[in-house]
Amino acid sequence: MTVFDRLESEVQSYARSFPVTFKTAEGSWLTDTNGNRYLDFLAGAGSLNYGHNNPILQERLIDYIKANGITHGLDMHTSAKEEFLGAMESKIFKPRGMEYKIQFTGPTGTNAVEAALKLARRIKGRGNVISFTNGFHGVTLGSLAVTGNEHHRGAAGVSLDNAAFVPFDGYMGNGVDTTDYLDRVLSDNSSGVALPAAIIVETVQGEGGLNAADFGWLKKVETLCRKHDILLIVDDIQAGCGRTGTFFSFEPAGIKPDMVTMSKSLSAYGLPFAVVLIKPEYDVWHPGEHNGTFRGNNHAFVTAAAALEHFWSDDKFAKSVQEKAEFLGQRLEEIATRYGDNGSIYRKGRGLMQGICFESGEIAGKVTSECFTHNLIIETSGPEDEVVKCLVPLTISMEDLAHGLDVLEMSTAKVMGKNVVTAKVAAE
Amino acid sequence: MTVFDRLESEVQSYARSFPVTFKTAEGSWLTDTNGNRYLDFLAGAGSLNYGHNNPILQERLIDYIKANGITHGLDMHTSAKEEFLGAMESKIFKPRGMEYKIQFTGPTGTNAVEAALKLARRIKGRGNVISFTNGFHGVTLGSLAVTGNEHHRGAAGVSLDNAAFVPFDGYMGNGVDTTDYLDRVLSDNSSGVALPAAIIVETVQGEGGLNAADFGWLKKVETLCRKHDILLIVDDIQAGCGRTGTFFSFEPAGIKPDMVTMSKSLSAYGLPFAVVLIKPEYDVWHPGEHNGTFRGNNHAFVTAAAALEHFWSDDKFAKSVQEKAEFLGQRLEEIATRYGDNGSIYRKGRGLMQGICFESGEIAGKVTSECFTHNLIIETSGPEDEVVKCLVPLTISMEDLAHGLDVLEMSTAKVMGKNVVTAKVAAE
Amino acid sequence: MTVFDRLESEVQSYARSFPVTFKTAEGSWLTDTNGNRYLDFLAGAGSLNYGHNNPILQERLIDYIKANGITHGLDMHTSAKEEFLGAMESKIFKPRGMEYKIQFTGPTGTNAVEAALKLARRIKGRGNVISFTNGFHGVTLGSLAVTGNEHHRGAAGVSLDNAAFVPFDGYMGNGVDTTDYLDRVLSDNSSGVALPAAIIVETVQGEGGLNAADFGWLKKVETLCRKHDILLIVDDIQAGCGRTGTFFSFEPAGIKPDMVTMSKSLSAYGLPFAVVLIKPEYDVWHPGEHNGTFRGNNHAFVTAAAALEHFWSDDKFAKSVQEKAEFLGQRLEEIATRYGDNGSIYRKGRGLMQGICFESGEIAGKVTSECFTHNLIIETSGPEDEVVKCLVPLTISMEDLAHGLDVLEMSTAKVMGKNVVTAKVAAE
Amino acid sequence: MTVFDRLESEVQSYARSFPVTFKTAEGSWLTDTNGNRYLDFLAGAGSLNYGHNNPILQERLIDYIKANGITHGLDMHTSAKEEFLGAMESKIFKPRGMEYKIQFTGPTGTNAVEAALKLARRIKGRGNVISFTNGFHGVTLGSLAVTGNEHHRGAAGVSLDNAAFVPFDGYMGNGVDTTDYLDRVLSDNSSGVALPAAIIVETVQGEGGLNAADFGWLKKVETLCRKHDILLIVDDIQAGCGRTGTFFSFEPAGIKPDMVTMSKSLSAYGLPFAVVLIKPEYDVWHPGEHNGTFRGNNHAFVTAAAALEHFWSDDKFAKSVQEKAEFLGQRLEEIATRYGDNGSIYRKGRGLMQGICFESGEIAGKVTSECFTHNLIIETSGPEDEVVKCLVPLTISMEDLAHGLDVLEMSTAKVMGKNVVTAKVAAE
Repeated sequence: MTVFDRLESEVQSYARSFPVTFKTAEGSWLTDTNGNRYLDFLAGAGSLNYGHNNPILQERLIDYIKANGITHGLDMHTSAKEEFLGAMESKIFKPRGMEYKIQFTGPTGTNAVEAALKLARRIKGRGNVISFTNGFHGVTLGSLAVTGNEHHRGAAGVSLDNAAFVPFDGYMGNGVDTTDYLDRVLSDNSSGVALPAAIIVETVQGEGGLNAADFGWLKKVETLCRKHDILLIVDDIQAGCGRTGTFFSFEPAGIKPDMVTMSKSLSAYGLPFAVVLIKPEYDVWHPGEHNGTFRGNNHAFVTAAAALEHFWSDDKFAKSVQEKAEFLGQRLEEIATRYGDNGSIYRKGRGLMQGICFESGEIAGKVTSECFTHNLIIETSGPEDEVVKCLVPLTISMEDLAHGLDVLEMSTAKVMGKNVVTAKVAAE
Repeated sequence: MTVFDRLESEVQSYARSFPVTFKTAEGSWLTDTNGNRYLDFLAGAGSLNYGHNNPILQERLIDYIKANGITHGLDMHTSAKEEFLGAMESKIFKPRGMEYKIQFTGPTGTNAVEAALKLARRIKGRGNVISFTNGFHGVTLGSLAVTGNEHHRGAAGVSLDNAAFVPFDGYMGNGVDTTDYLDRVLSDNSSGVALPAAIIVETVQGEGGLNAADFGWLKKVETLCRKHDILLIVDDIQAGCGRTGTFFSFEPAGIKPDMVTMSKSLSAYGLPFAVVLIKPEYDVWHPGEHNGTFRGNNHAFVTAAAALEHFWSDDKFAKSVQEKAEFLGQRLEEIATRYGDNGSIYRKGRGLMQGICFESGEIAGKVTSECFTHNLIIETSGPEDEVVKCLVPLTISMEDLAHGLDVLEMSTAKVMGKNVVTAKVAAE
Repeated sequence: MTVFDRLESEVQSYARSFPVTFKTAEGSWLTDTNGNRYLDFLAGAGSLNYGHNNPILQERLIDYIKANGITHGLDMHTSAKEEFLGAMESKIFKPRGMEYKIQFTGPTGTNAVEAALKLARRIKGRGNVISFTNGFHGVTLGSLAVTGNEHHRGAAGVSLDNAAFVPFDGYMGNGVDTTDYLDRVLSDNSSGVALPAAIIVETVQGEGGLNAADFGWLKKVETLCRKHDILLIVDDIQAGCGRTGTFFSFEPAGIKPDMVTMSKSLSAYGLPFAVVLIKPEYDVWHPGEHNGTFRGNNHAFVTAAAALEHFWSDDKFAKSVQEKAEFLGQRLEEIATRYGDNGSIYRKGRGLMQGICFESGEIAGKVTSECFTHNLIIETSGPEDEVVKCLVPLTISMEDLAHGLDVLEMSTAKVMGKNVVTAKVAAE
Repeated sequence: MTVFDRLESEVQSYARSFPVTFKTAEGSWLTDTNGNRYLDFLAGAGSLNYGHNNPILQERLIDYIKANGITHGLDMHTSAKEEFLGAMESKIFKPRGMEYKIQFTGPTGTNAVEAALKLARRIKGRGNVISFTNGFHGVTLGSLAVTGNEHHRGAAGVSLDNAAFVPFDGYMGNGVDTTDYLDRVLSDNSSGVALPAAIIVETVQGEGGLNAADFGWLKKVETLCRKHDILLIVDDIQAGCGRTGTFFSFEPAGIKPDMVTMSKSLSAYGLPFAVVLIKPEYDVWHPGEHNGTFRGNNHAFVTAAAALEHFWSDDKFAKSVQEKAEFLGQRLEEIATRYGDNGSIYRKGRGLMQGICFESGEIAGKVTSECFTHNLIIETSGPEDEVVKCLVPLTISMEDLAHGLDVLEMSTAKVMGKNVVTAKVAAE
């Protein structure tokens, strides 16, 4: 009986899928205590966009620690925070013509969402917030109220209020523009859906099953927000930081959210970090109203600033992500076409946030289990865990990416009871 | 106009009290960008019990990072987590005859509280939770509902439900045992206070103004929990990790909480980290129900494990804390006696979680401002910010402790319009 | 300044539309204190289906009062209640093959709805209830939560929880079957819409604007309830008691609700009365859990029993209602066709619960005002008050019905700036 | 199997205590279908202050019905309403120097409470309302949230929010002024009790066990309302209409509530009727925001107006009530002294709202059961149903009152295992 068995709570989740003990990691690879290496197609659920222990960031972090740089700074001004703010200004906001204030919240995505919702409610003086089917925004009670997943909602033990759900893009089938329904309930004084303070949306629903919103649809959502005097919050916690090929996932849609929540890969090194970007006119917080002991995680400021400078000073990194995304999409299309029957399995998602939807969570789970026997770490998402999700490090090499996809193809073929087509894979 | 002015949200709080930019820190001292040094009587609001950048922990952390140890591990098993669990088992649980499961939550105190409340509601099938006047448990909606402070509650923008507040120890004046009232409302089928799933309590209310519960009172609360079939949750986020002279603040009261929330100084190095300790029979979580991207902050596991080994292998450290606490208490008593009028100012708190209560937040604020002009970082707490709070690093030297108290005495004297008594201070 | 001006609250509504003081009433006519007579196309908002002071019921009531029959009986057994129960059994349940228990609630529709929702939540152990856009179920907080109208919801002053709204039949335009969406959100584990205890529905939404659900749609709603283990509550408060041509409005749809709420015309004489019909297997109330001082309004039992015997012993009355409904529908179609432009105004509703939808509440309001100048009492409904609603007494004579419709036609013509077609009206 | 067994819901309560079928009633006596007569010490739970079928009111009502007076008037102006308003003005408000607007709500007490709470929340823009331990205000969700009784609260099936309970007068034992605690939590910015829109209070808690507030305590509650900018709502539904010896129960306390809810005996004849009295400056309703089909129960207006004229034109009736109350109190004291052991049973209450508190609900229930075998209808109240409650008609004759008390004494003696002292009773 290991110490994990003796002491760790039953709430464990990933540890059940990957029952080994990991020790070290570099780039796209993890190594367990027995020296076995695993290719990482999960990337910390999107928190390791720049891979594990990126050496550039690592060096900066070690130097900072050695120099006795401030580690924990509450919300006090520190050199590390100054550097991060400067990098956000020069590398992100200015080139994009954006103007935002930055709120440092407790260093978890859900904390940023809670802060954004509070602020929106304060600004508009309304309690209701509209969220979308299959949306996921966190599991503390405020965020959980706008999260669709019943597995998580059911754990609340209390009713989750002040939120209304409307259909995400594509939810009612092709040909139905769900913003029409949204406009209808907002325009109708008797719809039962109270005018919300805000609409919170993910451009690609990561936990919800890699549902990628059409850019036109996002634009319409923004238009409805302006029409009905509603704030638009984009939750870019999973889809942001380059995951879809641009720093913010909403850039190609041409929308200007009133608030943006960021976390996961923001520190670039896997360190806890979260912020809310707020249009300056909406930064109406009273001092300390929303606080949190670890809102000054300076190690994260250091690595985040370094990453902004290294990866986002020009468009090379973004372009490389877009190229890999293209490749990934093609391979996933191929796999779906080859091993599905009449569209029973299909590609989903956008950027390096794509995957394959199977007919059930059971099948998808068999595929990821099979992958793990070939040392590929990959997980499912979606309401029934039916989507196998390729959340590769954005820095993955083309060779590793191809290898992982070969494993995925082989595993898919096996589970679907088909012969593998790819020569390379078959040769293994 | 600095980048802080341009970009950082108005929600800032401590940055307003200490308007400099900090760069480095060692032990009990911070240094700003101009090379000025400040003695730290705030200690990250209780997150830096072992001081800043403790060299033992620093070395371990650098070694770990250099070796490409796992940084971000979701909830997967890692060597670093294994070490932490082992240290908790051997250094904390076994010597105290305790048996708990450990849930790794999102690495903020509020996240641990949210998890504990969810689990309690699940176990008992009841929505209500009882909290105490002046309690503080966090600002995400679930935790905020059991937090008394209206400054924070008012920011929610929605009603905060499923919580009822009852008077903390001493709230109704001397001679009134507030557990009598608690027992009455729990026994009375028509009190309007629903039988709760849990009672959540801090043994010393840090944010609430250093109200220290009597051990007998805590014991009675536990007895009422058993009598009425209610879970007892001790929120040891601020008072735990040695702050009051024992690892857990509740040890001298002889109570056995069903759950304990821990955070702040748990990592020992100021890194984000939080857990819930759960009696094994109550660990009824379904896999992944309460999750969070950063629940596997391995850097924190490394420093936490190192601190447990270094500070808690025997009782030397605890004894040193107790000695300092005794000294602190005496000095604060002296200050209160010397510069107060008829008890207008008085000492409060327990262990190294003591302070001085002034007649108003305005006066207390003047004292801390005056302290800062003498390079002492110290803050207020309490409903009206009327309590000056000495949250010194537990590792502070006696010399530094005495020096800080001299500054506090001098500042108190000045604000109270009295002559300073202490020769040493007067000589400055 | 009258005593109404001096003493009655500003909450008055109908009194503003009909600014006279009424003194007596018989059948379909009201008389004011000046002796002016008014034809009643409002019928107590559906509470006077059998007209004012029906002489048969009047006699029974006077006899009962004279004989010192119990007036107020709490929930004690009385002869009057016995008679009412007997009449429900023999005249209503048995002929229709129905089996229900009857709960006597506080004598208002909203109280019956509150009771039904409580019981449903008890039975299923779930908090959520699904209601429909434009649904109206009352203004006490429990009922208000399932009522769509923001004018009423906004008055709550607190958030209205544990309810989710989905589109009523026709809400998303022709060709969209809104039960498909309902099935989708109920089947999807991540839709954000919790599995409800019950779905509450009106077959014709009276306050919501005379939206009549298709029988097939109602049947599908019932089927979804069975599929997803949800209780079906029909709120028949306005549409029941013969209003649509059958005793229960849902009879022609062939559905078997688990609960039915009844009020308004149940007493048949305008006396406060409300009940919940509950399938026997769901009558799991504990004694007195839901109570109310006036749940034993015996005067109402007397008139209700008399009406059941007189009007519902055979199908003559129902047939006469159906004939009038047919006539009403034709006349309203004519009016809409004659005075609308390209379908700008149109007929809505079912049975003697029909009306005309205008392009705005302003226009509809002008029509009803004009009607009142011709001594016709008629009101609007709908989210924007855009529907002129003919809620005639079911007992109205064909002559009075025709006369009222002539006035409505003339008023419509005038407001629409058209010449009146009907010779008779033109001749007036 | 009777029709009650076949058809009436299990929610029945009083029908279980008095398992006969009542047919007629006059004054203080009920007669069942077998001709047995019962003395009524329950009086419709306080709805029959003027007895059953009072002949003066009966005549007026019959005349009104015969003349085809308006029965159901929605909220339209009618002659009957005019008369009622006039009587309230001349007989109640003017002599007492009061100024109130009257809102006609749905004709149940709970509906009046819901309206008052809504209006208070609107006026102050706050969601919270403070209520007292053992308070009872109704069972629709808004009223239930401020009702203490768990038997009723537990039936809600959802959490009851936006209410906080504080101890009623005497709740914390003699010598503890519970308004001190109330002031403390209202003054303390960190008490967890949000500043409420209103405090709602009964001067004598009828359902809560006949707890009579001290006048000084009520005055202090009013003072706290003024100090903290809170509205004061007196729920006079059970204690009003003369029950305690004055028209309003709060008159002798010298307080001026901002709102008063009235129902039960307001119609004076047992007919459903409820109003909210609102200080004119607070009558900020929008038209029709709070509505209800039966808010114009004109039969009730007729009998209410008649009763105001007959009983409240001078102080004779009030004085007679006070005399009876004195007698009642003395007899109850005697009974308690004679048959209790060391204060184990004792008198409670005020006016004609007094009773005897036994050691348990079981004992009290035995006493009322024994009474019923002697044809006395009397009920229990209190959190454990431990208080036998004498809610006699205010119009009861001294002879009947004495007789009922003899039965109560005899029954108490029997249940307590003592010999009866009263000669008269013993002689029976």
